[in-house]
Amino acid sequence: MNVMDAIRLKRAVRKFHDVPLPDDVVHAILNAGRRSQSSKNNQAWQFIAIRDRSVLKALSTCGEWASHIAGAALCVAILTPDPESKFQIMFDAGQAAAFMQLAAWELGVGSCPASLYEFEKTREILKFPAEWHLRIALSFGYPMDEEKISAPPKKGGRRSLEDVVHWEKW
Amino acid sequence: MNVMDAIRLKRAVRKFHDVPLPDDVVHAILNAGRRSQSSKNNQAWQFIAIRDRSVLKALSTCGEWASHIAGAALCVAILTPDPESKFQIMFDAGQAAAFMQLAAWELGVGSCPASLYEFEKTREILKFPAEWHLRIALSFGYPMDEEKISAPPKKGGRRSLEDVVHWEKW
Repeated sequence: MNVMDAIRLKRAVRKFHDVPLPDDVVHAILNAGRRSQSSKNNQAWQFIAIRDRSVLKALSTCGEWASHIAGAALCVAILTPDPESKFQIMFDAGQAAAFMQLAAWELGVGSCPASLYEFEKTREILKFPAEWHLRIALSFGYPMDEEKISAPPKKGGRRSLEDVVHWEKW
Repeated sequence: MNVMDAIRLKRAVRKFHDVPLPDDVVHAILNAGRRSQSSKNNQAWQFIAIRDRSVLKALSTCGEWASHIAGAALCVAILTPDPESKFQIMFDAGQAAAFMQLAAWELGVGSCPASLYEFEKTREILKFPAEWHLRIALSFGYPMDEEKISAPPKKGGRRSLEDVVHWEKW
């Protein structure tokens, strides 16, 4: 799948088949995140790859809209330094997340990010040290609705170019 | 170019040929950003696409490492709501930036993000209103070093999977 098609066709997937992802698919997704660009090539991230159903379920209770994690085949928790320390921290996490999700889509794997607001609870579940922080985790899995992978883009899903782009100045 | 190859081969490009990008290439890059996923599909961004050399040069003085903007064929300034208001703001900006840069790479166009620290100066140059904020802009152009587009990944450019990934828990 070429890049432009992946970008054009990718949509959020929150319901997944109860089928594990093969190890090579899991590695491909994590490698895409690892290979992402980052400010000064800092690579200021650590990923926790979760497939244990009990951990997935626990994590799914850490955000109001995070319930899709419970049914994911894989969750990747993106740990960062303190998100409030520099504006590049979450920007770079977003770049890594985009790379992982596009790579997954090419392999027929859907995904969705979840914001996690129960900071201390996520730390207790995943046991990461105080200098690392978790705000967003990604759910991955084969889409329950298999047609999503090849469906045309949803009409009105994104604002038009004219609504978003200014030329030369505001 | 498939997604995985684009991710594997993409590298930062800071020196560009003094050749304009065709309009369809500029539109393809901006469309990739526009189509990016965002928290609650908020699409909390506006893009200023800059090709005027005098504006590019002015913007290149707004960050310590932003000089590459001066020689870019296109700069996309990613405007967001207050980056400190929610951790998703810069995360989503990063996702849009990753989409634009991968789409560009597929079209033979190199890119590099620049952090802009002179907030008020960028506002004066680009005339955007107080509710929008600019932290990161992307330079685009055909790479001066044309071999970069097809060169194998630099050895040691990224940390190994083992250094970055934890399984199930930290």
